[in-house]
Amino acid sequence: MAVYTDVSDEDLSAFIASYDVGTLLSCKGIAEGIENTNYFITTDQAPFILTLYEKRVKKEDLPFFMDIKEHLASKGINCPQPIKDRKGVVLKELSGRPAAMISFLNGMGVRRLQPHHCRALGEAMAEMHLAGQDFEQTRKNNFSIDSFRTLFAPSKDHADEIEEDLADFIEEEIGRMEKRWPTNLPTGLIHADLFPDNVFFLGQELSGIIDFYFACTDALAYDFAICLNAWCFEPDLSFNVTKARHMLAGYQKVRPFTKEEKEAIPLFARGSAMRFLLTRLHDWLYTPADALVVKKDPREYLMKLRFHQSLADASIYGLGDS
Amino acid sequence: MAVYTDVSDEDLSAFIASYDVGTLLSCKGIAEGIENTNYFITTDQAPFILTLYEKRVKKEDLPFFMDIKEHLASKGINCPQPIKDRKGVVLKELSGRPAAMISFLNGMGVRRLQPHHCRALGEAMAEMHLAGQDFEQTRKNNFSIDSFRTLFAPSKDHADEIEEDLADFIEEEIGRMEKRWPTNLPTGLIHADLFPDNVFFLGQELSGIIDFYFACTDALAYDFAICLNAWCFEPDLSFNVTKARHMLAGYQKVRPFTKEEKEAIPLFARGSAMRFLLTRLHDWLYTPADALVVKKDPREYLMKLRFHQSLADASIYGLGDS
Repeated sequence: MAVYTDVSDEDLSAFIASYDVGTLLSCKGIAEGIENTNYFITTDQAPFILTLYEKRVKKEDLPFFMDIKEHLASKGINCPQPIKDRKGVVLKELSGRPAAMISFLNGMGVRRLQPHHCRALGEAMAEMHLAGQDFEQTRKNNFSIDSFRTLFAPSKDHADEIEEDLADFIEEEIGRMEKRWPTNLPTGLIHADLFPDNVFFLGQELSGIIDFYFACTDALAYDFAICLNAWCFEPDLSFNVTKARHMLAGYQKVRPFTKEEKEAIPLFARGSAMRFLLTRLHDWLYTPADALVVKKDPREYLMKLRFHQSLADASIYGLGDS
Repeated sequence: MAVYTDVSDEDLSAFIASYDVGTLLSCKGIAEGIENTNYFITTDQAPFILTLYEKRVKKEDLPFFMDIKEHLASKGINCPQPIKDRKGVVLKELSGRPAAMISFLNGMGVRRLQPHHCRALGEAMAEMHLAGQDFEQTRKNNFSIDSFRTLFAPSKDHADEIEEDLADFIEEEIGRMEKRWPTNLPTGLIHADLFPDNVFFLGQELSGIIDFYFACTDALAYDFAICLNAWCFEPDLSFNVTKARHMLAGYQKVRPFTKEEKEAIPLFARGSAMRFLLTRLHDWLYTPADALVVKKDPREYLMKLRFHQSLADASIYGLGDS
């Protein structure tokens, strides 16, 4: 939860007046989103989200993130839309930060996930992957196999403070992944951070996807593997096979995986567990104690990684049958 | 900024369904309010605030706080209104906490205060004081002269860590205040926490007052003195005489102070500075470093207290003329 940048009344009023969105009625900082500052804005016309992009998001990536949302919406994917100001500009500046007004999306992230939520996510993810196929811009995934050693470097000397021999374990696992990582799979636009917080539901229906600030171009099956980790483990870190199979069924109803993708998913499950293990390890070690965020225990993803390592075959994901 | 209590989807849905407020569309934690957890809720009918009362608010005080808001609204004071559920109940429970749905008030706290804001505050405060005169319930002010020694006790042995001889300074000043504190002034319902965050404006107009969770029965002039401290110092802690005079003029336009009240205001300015010095000192010393709140430097109120002490007479507040 975080509001990193305070906005003065005058700056805010002038900013809102540069859009054709009506008269400003209220503005409240939102206690979610750890990357950016988000304000919930109401005008006499509609609610909006005002996002100020903080240091972790690179300014040069912002046009990509804005264009994705417009592209996906044009293909019928429900996601927040950047609002153009009176001059047609989407990316602006406020209080010294890059800033954008975004349409407000109804719905809420689900806290107690059920298998049907996982099925709906699978379908929506596959639809998003198909909708992204003709998106022409690309952006490298900075949180996958090529970056693991770089991501790990600053934490390496302190990893054993978290668990004995953790540094060696991570290095060896990265080495195994590098040898086997497939490079010839279907690629395209992936969300890369499709955690339950970022997928909204209204009642039983999935109402939209938010927070595209890790979106990039990579193997589509890697996105699916991220969701296996993010959606199919219970709070006690036991793996819920039913949820995984529902997610797979939902996905394949829209876009069947190729044989090679299916074969890659177990490795991608380990890889995406490694990705979150490394970033959480870094944040755990380097986030100041007084920062306004809740630090997430890196051991959660260490346990998930070990679970995936322990499997004899891919049948637990529902992939053994075909 | 704080969301202390997480609410599950099922609990939230059931809670909202107990009201006649339409279908739940969204729920976002708000990054403001350090006492309670606040969610911004939208339904297909209207926006609302859902407040979960955390430990710092006493459960037995909640009916008083709810009744104030209804009373003031019935007298034309714009403040958030508790919403009754289908059974007519206002105070309920959610996720193990006392909880209430409150109407959403348009407007925003002003960050860069101008004299006209202070004048508007003065008027609104006086109107609130008049509107509260026939409110029959009472509640003791736990943050005034009778409580200063109790409030100070836990911090006393550590106060000198903040500044040399601070403990002695505070004790002596409390002693001086106790001797001179007036007891025969007009009393009634006071807000007792009328900081700029809690006073909403829409454009140039004051649109409402929020956050009555310190409201109590005390000398009306003490409320005014709190605002001298909260509204009339610049960020560099210089005292803005123009703002003070505007606030006084606004107040007296609606409710002229008695001679005795005017005489008491300089002491109340010191007293209310002491009140915030003591609570901030306590929070500074005892709030864990990983708590989700920004700790406020107690020295701000120490400097304000010393400013008030330094004055030869009350003319700086605009009180010398009459």
